[in-house]
Amino acid sequence: MHGCNGAMGQVVTGIAAEEKNIVIVAGIDPHDTGQNPYPVFPSLESCNIEADVIVDFTSSKAVDGLLDYSVRKEIPVVVCTTGLSEEQMKKLEEAANHVAVLKSANMSLGVNLLMKLVKDAAQILAAAGFDIEILEKHHNKKLDAPSGTALALADSINEAMDQEFHYVYDRSQVRKARDKKEIGIQSVRGGTIVGEHDVIFAGTDEIVTFHHTAYSKAIFAKGAVSAAKFLAGKAPGFYTMKDVIDS
Amino acid sequence: MHGCNGAMGQVVTGIAAEEKNIVIVAGIDPHDTGQNPYPVFPSLESCNIEADVIVDFTSSKAVDGLLDYSVRKEIPVVVCTTGLSEEQMKKLEEAANHVAVLKSANMSLGVNLLMKLVKDAAQILAAAGFDIEILEKHHNKKLDAPSGTALALADSINEAMDQEFHYVYDRSQVRKARDKKEIGIQSVRGGTIVGEHDVIFAGTDEIVTFHHTAYSKAIFAKGAVSAAKFLAGKAPGFYTMKDVIDS
Amino acid sequence: MHGCNGAMGQVVTGIAAEEKNIVIVAGIDPHDTGQNPYPVFPSLESCNIEADVIVDFTSSKAVDGLLDYSVRKEIPVVVCTTGLSEEQMKKLEEAANHVAVLKSANMSLGVNLLMKLVKDAAQILAAAGFDIEILEKHHNKKLDAPSGTALALADSINEAMDQEFHYVYDRSQVRKARDKKEIGIQSVRGGTIVGEHDVIFAGTDEIVTFHHTAYSKAIFAKGAVSAAKFLAGKAPGFYTMKDVIDS
Amino acid sequence: MHGCNGAMGQVVTGIAAEEKNIVIVAGIDPHDTGQNPYPVFPSLESCNIEADVIVDFTSSKAVDGLLDYSVRKEIPVVVCTTGLSEEQMKKLEEAANHVAVLKSANMSLGVNLLMKLVKDAAQILAAAGFDIEILEKHHNKKLDAPSGTALALADSINEAMDQEFHYVYDRSQVRKARDKKEIGIQSVRGGTIVGEHDVIFAGTDEIVTFHHTAYSKAIFAKGAVSAAKFLAGKAPGFYTMKDVIDS
Repeated sequence: MHGCNGAMGQVVTGIAAEEKNIVIVAGIDPHDTGQNPYPVFPSLESCNIEADVIVDFTSSKAVDGLLDYSVRKEIPVVVCTTGLSEEQMKKLEEAANHVAVLKSANMSLGVNLLMKLVKDAAQILAAAGFDIEILEKHHNKKLDAPSGTALALADSINEAMDQEFHYVYDRSQVRKARDKKEIGIQSVRGGTIVGEHDVIFAGTDEIVTFHHTAYSKAIFAKGAVSAAKFLAGKAPGFYTMKDVIDS
Repeated sequence: MHGCNGAMGQVVTGIAAEEKNIVIVAGIDPHDTGQNPYPVFPSLESCNIEADVIVDFTSSKAVDGLLDYSVRKEIPVVVCTTGLSEEQMKKLEEAANHVAVLKSANMSLGVNLLMKLVKDAAQILAAAGFDIEILEKHHNKKLDAPSGTALALADSINEAMDQEFHYVYDRSQVRKARDKKEIGIQSVRGGTIVGEHDVIFAGTDEIVTFHHTAYSKAIFAKGAVSAAKFLAGKAPGFYTMKDVIDS
Repeated sequence: MHGCNGAMGQVVTGIAAEEKNIVIVAGIDPHDTGQNPYPVFPSLESCNIEADVIVDFTSSKAVDGLLDYSVRKEIPVVVCTTGLSEEQMKKLEEAANHVAVLKSANMSLGVNLLMKLVKDAAQILAAAGFDIEILEKHHNKKLDAPSGTALALADSINEAMDQEFHYVYDRSQVRKARDKKEIGIQSVRGGTIVGEHDVIFAGTDEIVTFHHTAYSKAIFAKGAVSAAKFLAGKAPGFYTMKDVIDS
Repeated sequence: MHGCNGAMGQVVTGIAAEEKNIVIVAGIDPHDTGQNPYPVFPSLESCNIEADVIVDFTSSKAVDGLLDYSVRKEIPVVVCTTGLSEEQMKKLEEAANHVAVLKSANMSLGVNLLMKLVKDAAQILAAAGFDIEILEKHHNKKLDAPSGTALALADSINEAMDQEFHYVYDRSQVRKARDKKEIGIQSVRGGTIVGEHDVIFAGTDEIVTFHHTAYSKAIFAKGAVSAAKFLAGKAPGFYTMKDVIDS
């Protein structure tokens, strides 16, 4: 568990303890609390325990070192850290030539299922003239907007539709009717909302909405554990939660 | 257009007028208003005009005669009338041995798409321990509850899941935790709500909801027109809106 | 009925026909269809019939003449036309010194009730640290964003809170946590959505939402008829739908 | 803190630690964990520490003794335990003749605000012909349906409307249009949903919905702490969260 004493690392620790067929054999974290049911090492290099998979919930700074280690030791790695730079995403894909790497914008089962179903829906509904809009809600401390998950949902649709859509985040500055080829992405911020996403298909007198609510961050940890189980023993390559769901 | 002067017959008339590649060549209705852009005959027997398809929005009483006529004349028929008896459903399937027959619980594109997607979702989410619930809202004049569409959505899921679920409509009379193998179906009635359906998958700290809103009955007429275009020239057989969507 | 042959004028005509205690005695419209149950005059000046109230659903250009006429003839006037300039709003307030004038951002009973209740809610919930956000959805032909109703809801809250909030329409261009003193206003556009508004109060682990859906423009016509009944015989002054509801 | 080592007692302990102007001076619980920042006594009788208020989150069995103690010692008491018998509710009202007692169906600020606002809404919207429906969603382990909060919301409306409504929980067994004087109350059960409530006012082409979502049980603990602050030093009498909000 890379980043075992962070907030998400601790949630993963709790969930792994309840799951069958999975044991965290070691944690990596600069700070040790002495309260984990496994040994904790200050760095990957100092860790002398063998693992089938590394699960990572750290910060973007720690990811480069992690990828080097993972390639060198040939240990598959589930990268849950978000906010990676484009350069890092390239490094990640490069690493995937040598070891199994899994990375998704959102680790929850529900969002990843939607990622898939909205593609199917877009192909049928957009062809029938429905407009597509995305709405996301998060807590008042979130720095970025729209959420990575909202963008990933839009990208998923766009990929299925030959990249014909562009994204619109603000309609208050222009006075014009909606363009057929836009996907509006709106962000609501308030309180402690963990994360809500709506993908809205609005047609003539008819609306179809795909909605996801996260009640706690545990669902991301749960997804990470499922991903770890899936990735153990896999051949080198770039995997996503879609592969976990399809398996 | 069988039942051309009923409320839905008139909506179909309006929509057909705006569509390309479709012309209503004759209407059948006991009452003629003289205001349709096509000749109106008091009965199928008295109609001397050839058609590629018959679209039916009448009442269950009129369906038996319609099926006989359709088989005899070998004209494909889109049956939009609801509330058919089991006997009539059998007669309909029997007719489908001789002529193309299309029938769906709900004619809208959106609902029929959901009918398909909730199957995919159920297979993944129910396996992951999510509970399935259905919620529908209709106007205060609707006699039956739950709606035919809510039941069709539940049946669609149940079919994909080896019929392992039973349906629960009332929880106020018992004091017990939810059974894993139930699908709760709840009905809200009020005002002039045209029709809303939610299929809710509730898991641990995560909810996925598929939602459909109908803003007017025009969407059912539009579905009927799409179905008519699809059915023209088709071989004998029983078709549903699913076939229209997949085509 | 000023603007009797416009889309909204016709809806008002239909609703007035079904209401007790109200009769449209004359219509004003440059175009006469000959199909109204009342005489139609090409201009206010050419109308020789006495009325208790004028209901106006025209365009902003026609409002100046209307106000002059209303003041001169001392006939109360319900102005439902939207998109008035600031200058026109001033003229309207000036007219209200001489005759009863009613104007609201949204004529529906439901929205005007919310206008009132969100004030009460804001005073309690904002004090308890809840964040306030507004979300509106309209059809893909609407030119302006956010909707006048969304702004009126925000203004209503701001008025109750000593104008301490500023409005934010786009969060995609900055990378920072939400400011306590902002009201985010987001606009979704798609299909034929008549109008939906959410006022969201998001606190710690708790959300209160006030939601309004309009299913058809009939509700605006209905509000106009209620307003007309209310305004007949009223003393000069500026009235809003709030007065109609409180009466 | 009466019941300090139960799930809710611990949440209250956490919240009290972060609040200003409040200190838990003693806990009562048969089981002591030794991990609370205050002394814990096995029973009220064995507690020798003075308190301004008692907060109770125990089980219905423990409430009788609590009320006796509270009356005898003249210490105001916030009763958060649910599922009290009618007899116990009477005893509670009797105790309120001698000491300040606070009890509400739901301790959250949001729900109690809605309790008040839906009364105002009902008086205006029911008079205008809107139908009223209530919808609640809870986790799959909840034994009772509908929720106490849903019933309290219905009762709150009914009280404002001269008790003219009756409640309907199941519409699947009859085939008839909705009665004007009914409030439908529907219960959805699934996953770990903490608690959602919708009060829906459905009129002609218009819907107003009041929605509340609880993301965690912390909001009930927070309400209990606010209630305790409010109740300290109050004269004997029966209080509810409404008094806390209005204060």
